[in-house]
Amino acid sequence: MRRDDTIFQPRDPGYAERVRASFELQQAMTLVGAELAVVEPGYTEIHLPFKPAITQQHGYIHGGIVGMIADSAAGYAANTLTAADASVLTVEYKINLLAPAEGERLVARGEVVRPGRTLIITKADVFAIRDEKWTLCAVMQQTIMVMHARKERTD
Amino acid sequence: MRRDDTIFQPRDPGYAERVRASFELQQAMTLVGAELAVVEPGYTEIHLPFKPAITQQHGYIHGGIVGMIADSAAGYAANTLTAADASVLTVEYKINLLAPAEGERLVARGEVVRPGRTLIITKADVFAIRDEKWTLCAVMQQTIMVMHARKERTD
Amino acid sequence: MRRDDTIFQPRDPGYAERVRASFELQQAMTLVGAELAVVEPGYTEIHLPFKPAITQQHGYIHGGIVGMIADSAAGYAANTLTAADASVLTVEYKINLLAPAEGERLVARGEVVRPGRTLIITKADVFAIRDEKWTLCAVMQQTIMVMHARKERTD
Amino acid sequence: MRRDDTIFQPRDPGYAERVRASFELQQAMTLVGAELAVVEPGYTEIHLPFKPAITQQHGYIHGGIVGMIADSAAGYAANTLTAADASVLTVEYKINLLAPAEGERLVARGEVVRPGRTLIITKADVFAIRDEKWTLCAVMQQTIMVMHARKERTD
Repeated sequence: MRRDDTIFQPRDPGYAERVRASFELQQAMTLVGAELAVVEPGYTEIHLPFKPAITQQHGYIHGGIVGMIADSAAGYAANTLTAADASVLTVEYKINLLAPAEGERLVARGEVVRPGRTLIITKADVFAIRDEKWTLCAVMQQTIMVMHARKERTD
Repeated sequence: MRRDDTIFQPRDPGYAERVRASFELQQAMTLVGAELAVVEPGYTEIHLPFKPAITQQHGYIHGGIVGMIADSAAGYAANTLTAADASVLTVEYKINLLAPAEGERLVARGEVVRPGRTLIITKADVFAIRDEKWTLCAVMQQTIMVMHARKERTD
Repeated sequence: MRRDDTIFQPRDPGYAERVRASFELQQAMTLVGAELAVVEPGYTEIHLPFKPAITQQHGYIHGGIVGMIADSAAGYAANTLTAADASVLTVEYKINLLAPAEGERLVARGEVVRPGRTLIITKADVFAIRDEKWTLCAVMQQTIMVMHARKERTD
Repeated sequence: MRRDDTIFQPRDPGYAERVRASFELQQAMTLVGAELAVVEPGYTEIHLPFKPAITQQHGYIHGGIVGMIADSAAGYAANTLTAADASVLTVEYKINLLAPAEGERLVARGEVVRPGRTLIITKADVFAIRDEKWTLCAVMQQTIMVMHARKERTD
């Protein structure tokens, strides 16, 4: 948190293509309709348009799907900072759901808090957008593990 | 944890129908193919058969979807103990992913740890089953809020 | 998070005295040597000077004590926003320890993320300060419950 | 969870002495009056007698101290399973406080859920005991990192 003064330097100049290629292979993201909209060093955004198929019983977007895009956005934020031949996996995350996920779309912003060699600590904020009014609907804190010399499958 | 000596008594004799009707309205559960297989006082199970559409880049079931069924199983476990005219919502959860979610299906067991009037503390274990070998692949701890006199929408 | 545009308005003009009086009653804070250094609407700081009595086996400040001041700073941040006759209690928190807590002192900054009537979601950052170099050593996310019409004991 | 069928085998036959020696060096544990009462493979217990110096404003044992003994009990449970020349550190933990920590003493039971080479996932239950009535007052889930070839300081 408060990373305002930090510019993360990617070790792999091809980080954006690498992360995008990995995302493309996540069929679960296609299923729910999520898009990897922004990929920057230590930061990504996943956008998720509303559709009835992803709702819970009250017609809001399912909390589990909110968790899913928060987990992915922060995990890929970590992945932007790894070496080209490393992959990442989620050790754990904790999410607080603050408000119903209602609106035309969700935006999950994943961000690296502390990059380590073996573990990367990240966070994500998820916003629900209705008529361009942004409401913070979830905050997440996450631990990511780096698997060195285990390239992500990208085909 | 260690609830072995505890028999939870439902306040609403129609708890199982009520919980099943709510689950039926969760289109997100239909989308991923999850089934509410068991509903007992303070306990539910969600079963999720493998299909390629719910995988991540390595072909395992997406960690976000593991979180989704853990969240739902434990939330509905809480819901079995509320009054008929109450609904529940997830305040937060924390999940550790212990092993890849690979196999023919997942089983999420949600369980009430401590039922309170306003808050219900729950947990879930998620198992990945391959050739009937069960592997614990995630453990979750969760806080549920009870909304009194706010009936779940069931139609 | 990103509360930069938010000015929290306390409902109780005597919030600072009330919170300080409560802190004074926490003998555990006296035991470890913690001071409530800042009390503002939706924000507090707890400062903790180093002393050998609060260390773990490597001579750093014990991680449990880092958690203790993070929990208290964020809980009191919530408490600044409640009515005069309400008290608060910690439902749960999750803390990531990012770096050894070594230095002359720790500063825990507790902050309200989302104030609700029944639940207040908060966060805390803990810094370790050595030779005026600040290192972020822990980040915490927390859920606080408001007990209405249950005044804090202040004598 | 549900580890009933699991017998953890320590790799270091001198695990108990090693863990006890480390605990002895934690001055913070002496300060609050905690004792390492049980050390078994993958399991430890920390006992904490009540004293006014560890209370919060209502006279119960401070929630931060509950977290402290839960963190330590589970961390040492992990430590029983490491090699003799390895040390452990807490990556993160999440704790739900279920009931006031009131009574003559607390017992924190730390337990390994999943031992890995780099990460060990653990849990702890904390009980408050009054007149030999045991009340579950906190449940914790935790991630521990193993530092290979970095012996714990034991002198």
